Amino acid sequence: MISDQLRDELLAFRKERDWEQFHNLRTLSTSIALEAAELMEHTQWATDADLPAIATLRHEAITEEIADVAILLTYLAHDLDVDMEEAVRRKLLNNAEKYPRRRRGVWRRSGIGCKLDLFAVEKR
Amino acid sequence: MISDQLRDELLAFRKERDWEQFHNLRTLSTSIALEAAELMEHTQWATDADLPAIATLRHEAITEEIADVAILLTYLAHDLDVDMEEAVRRKLLNNAEKYPRRRRGVWRRSGIGCKLDLFAVEKR
Amino acid sequence: MISDQLRDELLAFRKERDWEQFHNLRTLSTSIALEAAELMEHTQWATDADLPAIATLRHEAITEEIADVAILLTYLAHDLDVDMEEAVRRKLLNNAEKYPRRRRGVWRRSGIGCKLDLFAVEKR
Amino acid sequence: MISDQLRDELLAFRKERDWEQFHNLRTLSTSIALEAAELMEHTQWATDADLPAIATLRHEAITEEIADVAILLTYLAHDLDVDMEEAVRRKLLNNAEKYPRRRRGVWRRSGIGCKLDLFAVEKR
Repeated sequence: MISDQLRDELLAFRKERDWEQFHNLRTLSTSIALEAAELMEHTQWATDADLPAIATLRHEAITEEIADVAILLTYLAHDLDVDMEEAVRRKLLNNAEKYPRRRRGVWRRSGIGCKLDLFAVEKR
Repeated sequence: MISDQLRDELLAFRKERDWEQFHNLRTLSTSIALEAAELMEHTQWATDADLPAIATLRHEAITEEIADVAILLTYLAHDLDVDMEEAVRRKLLNNAEKYPRRRRGVWRRSGIGCKLDLFAVEKR
Repeated sequence: MISDQLRDELLAFRKERDWEQFHNLRTLSTSIALEAAELMEHTQWATDADLPAIATLRHEAITEEIADVAILLTYLAHDLDVDMEEAVRRKLLNNAEKYPRRRRGVWRRSGIGCKLDLFAVEKR
Repeated sequence: MISDQLRDELLAFRKERDWEQFHNLRTLSTSIALEAAELMEHTQWATDADLPAIATLRHEAITEEIADVAILLTYLAHDLDVDMEEAVRRKLLNNAEKYPRRRRGVWRRSGIGCKLDLFAVEKR
């Protein structure tokens, strides 16, 4: 997502301000949830038909919320010594096993559109 | 955070399963908020003193939640044509202006530890 | 929402288990957010057209999430000595002032369906 | 939590403004999650020691957030035809079965303070 150099700049920014003292697993997780809520706020009342217009007209504000989540996630991964590249790769491998590539079926939402049925394969 | 190659693998994974149809600004934002909630769940009842032990003993599960947020954020940034590196850099510059590097002060939480006072500079 | 008697039973349930020690402003707020996330999970991938069927087919599970939020909110209000009836009434009065009853206009979502424009009155 | 009369006033408030059109299972769930996030924001950076002071000094703002959650929950329960009193009572009965009243043990957080261990009974 972001370069090692930019990550180092984020770490330097925090260090220069002595903000490491405020960051721990709980405060960072909570802050990620709060920034995610701000991101979600843009579609709070949106119908399906509204979504493309929101994505265009609010692009700048949404981009800022995405950056906020990315920054906090970078701090948390750093502090917990999590290698993001490796963590994402492992998750991708797990998901590939869990949700095998379709062959003669189609993926679809269930009739009621709930997540548990999201990945059901319709056998033909 | 993650390499361009891994991002492309994530995009290929989604495409092979026809999951692009389920992803839009609202479903991805909501999913990011839900994964952030799962991350936060690890410290739901934790006292300050509990935090280091949780970070160690639950490292693997927490790493998975971090990866989940990163994956969804990668999809959203891609779909909205957001350059994450540029977005984070711009935010960092804004923050640097908003919260200037301290010189003869210290950063501290206010007496009541609320966010509005987090960045107050104590003049000496 | 719930009777004083049921509230007292909730308080007795907690007391008998010594759970008051785990409840404070932060743990209860976080728990409310986590239960709200579980409630929201039911519509994570839903399109507008899916919503009525979800509300029907998942009625029992959704009812449980609503109860969870209500229980935690009851504990928090009690612990902070908040009179819910009075708090809601005051908020309602504030909202009535903020969003005056329409006369010759109609309320509508803005063209892009974002919350800031939700309450705009269209003058005729 | 709130009286039937106040609930009816909330419903009338919404009807007079034609806001029923904006409320459905998804928009109300999302709004509850967003209000819960605002509630949680008050303790975003708080240490354990900060909590009592926040509860006192921010009492008014926190009371408003609690009211916001209660109002939205009232709308959702109404729209889904959920009897809050009955739903909470059933949940309380389930919880009483799931977490039996201690006799010769004590409830405690586990060594690492995570929710899965929250309700463990320590046998004596």
